[in-house]
Amino acid sequence: MRRFDTYTLWSLRGTLVLFVALFGIANVRAQDPLPSWNDGPAKQAVLAFVKDTTDKSSKKYVEPADRIATFDQDGTLWTEHPLYGQAAFALARVGEMAPSHPEWKQKEPFESVLARDNAAMSKFTEADWMQIIAVTHAGMSTEAFQGLVKGWLANAKAPRFDRPYTDLVYQPMLEVMKYLRTNGFRTFIVTGGGQEFVRVYSEQVYGVPPEQVVGSSIATTYVNTNGKPVLMREPKPFFIDDGPGKPIGINLFIGKRPSAAFGNSAGDTQMLEWTQSGDGAHLMMLVLHDDAKREYAYGPAANLPDTHVGTFSEALLTEAKQNAWIVVSMKNDWKRIFPFDE
Amino acid sequence: MRRFDTYTLWSLRGTLVLFVALFGIANVRAQDPLPSWNDGPAKQAVLAFVKDTTDKSSKKYVEPADRIATFDQDGTLWTEHPLYGQAAFALARVGEMAPSHPEWKQKEPFESVLARDNAAMSKFTEADWMQIIAVTHAGMSTEAFQGLVKGWLANAKAPRFDRPYTDLVYQPMLEVMKYLRTNGFRTFIVTGGGQEFVRVYSEQVYGVPPEQVVGSSIATTYVNTNGKPVLMREPKPFFIDDGPGKPIGINLFIGKRPSAAFGNSAGDTQMLEWTQSGDGAHLMMLVLHDDAKREYAYGPAANLPDTHVGTFSEALLTEAKQNAWIVVSMKNDWKRIFPFDE
Repeated sequence: MRRFDTYTLWSLRGTLVLFVALFGIANVRAQDPLPSWNDGPAKQAVLAFVKDTTDKSSKKYVEPADRIATFDQDGTLWTEHPLYGQAAFALARVGEMAPSHPEWKQKEPFESVLARDNAAMSKFTEADWMQIIAVTHAGMSTEAFQGLVKGWLANAKAPRFDRPYTDLVYQPMLEVMKYLRTNGFRTFIVTGGGQEFVRVYSEQVYGVPPEQVVGSSIATTYVNTNGKPVLMREPKPFFIDDGPGKPIGINLFIGKRPSAAFGNSAGDTQMLEWTQSGDGAHLMMLVLHDDAKREYAYGPAANLPDTHVGTFSEALLTEAKQNAWIVVSMKNDWKRIFPFDE
Repeated sequence: MRRFDTYTLWSLRGTLVLFVALFGIANVRAQDPLPSWNDGPAKQAVLAFVKDTTDKSSKKYVEPADRIATFDQDGTLWTEHPLYGQAAFALARVGEMAPSHPEWKQKEPFESVLARDNAAMSKFTEADWMQIIAVTHAGMSTEAFQGLVKGWLANAKAPRFDRPYTDLVYQPMLEVMKYLRTNGFRTFIVTGGGQEFVRVYSEQVYGVPPEQVVGSSIATTYVNTNGKPVLMREPKPFFIDDGPGKPIGINLFIGKRPSAAFGNSAGDTQMLEWTQSGDGAHLMMLVLHDDAKREYAYGPAANLPDTHVGTFSEALLTEAKQNAWIVVSMKNDWKRIFPFDE
């Protein structure tokens, strides 16, 4: 065995120090779990929350079984402007079904949909939408409905971006979801939208399995004909998972209070309140749509009129300030909006 | 290094063979995942199901994400005779609340409860029970309700066995649940009983976390007073997870079809049908209460009158035979009934 002289040993030591330094830096860079976030209070809040909840010596430590994070979908995980994806699906279905419903040409709300009268559609009431949902989302089995959603997703293109709706998901939020899961959290979608609709793509798009999607639902009936049972979707609402319905849905479906909740509109207020009022660590975040260049600006960030989309209102901004909820500026906090952005 | 002569080597080899043989046998014994089951078609069916669903080369292989098993509770996981645990809780609550309700002494169904008139109680209608549930299970927050259930569980004793209700769980079923979980299945309780009631003890007693308990529920309302939000339990039913409600609840809460389902009464029929009609491997089992000596005999196994308890009827036994569902005889298939049995 060759013996090293002092010079060789020192040289080796130097190389080692340099190697560790370089490797250490490279490693820290490679390990940034939120690369699409600009450094700032929002990013720091997520990092601090994970540190606190997973550090056994912290007073804010949360047992793995209780690590629950809930995410609104429309406007929080994917683009909701100018129309919810699910509303676009419903309107497309009206068009497809129209040939078998000649009476729709003289019957609202269908008449306006078929005439593509955006001004009239923007004034649709909840009852109008319920009529549209009833004919487009019901009267079929759950499997048949899932098939329709799959077919639509494969072909529909969102306005402005001319891409599938499922492309318009927010890369920084995907990173937060993944980072939380890596740290033992289970990520749930808690959406005012249709539970059965979102479940069709939640696993593939968000990494959230169907059983972790809580949403609004319509009544189903069990029908067993000749040993081939199906669940038939009925044209009546069963559960509205919005506003106060969100904590109700969380308790019903999960039975545990989240430690972290993410939303973007007035319909998420109660979910954030509910999260904040639990024991231990909390993280409450709201996505503010203030980036007209890369996505859309609406709510308090623009003078766009509120449509049926439950936007981030001035009132919500006030409550967020009072409760120290973290408002994420898409413009300032996010380096990248969509996975396809450079 | 000392060299071994031939004799020593042969002797070592013999010892090794003996060791492997002994260790192998001991290991197989230690690894019997269902030690409380007598060998027979029921035990073999469970073992074959797990082998098929977890063997990638099997046509019946099930992806880990889709490994779902659902279990009825009353009469399937714990004793339901002569009264459901939750009914006993409700009756005890009536007794506790009676001093503040002097009018109950002349008002049915409370009068019969307070008089411990078992004959009258056995004739209670669903409306009678709903009245009892309304006063005993509602008008309080979810947290307050959980506290009441905890308190009752800690003190109440089941008839005949004079033990806490949560002692009267079936050891063979605990073994099946654990065996399935060890093999990547998620075990869900799908009960006609109260979801919020069962969630109080499901983790401790069955190893099933609250979010994997699907059950009947009453409506809740979100009330936020001074930043201290609560969910108030209202005296009206929200969802009845029984009969056709079981597949509906499974679709609603899980969004996946189970590969295995376990029940014991007519209220489980549709859950088993739903499980059987899915793709891939299935296991459908019904627990038959035919052991008057160690537990109770009722349903087709005895001439006990059907009470409000949804028993295993002759009609169910016929359907089980037609569909090749496996009927588990507590008397013949189970070596041990309760964990406390010798």
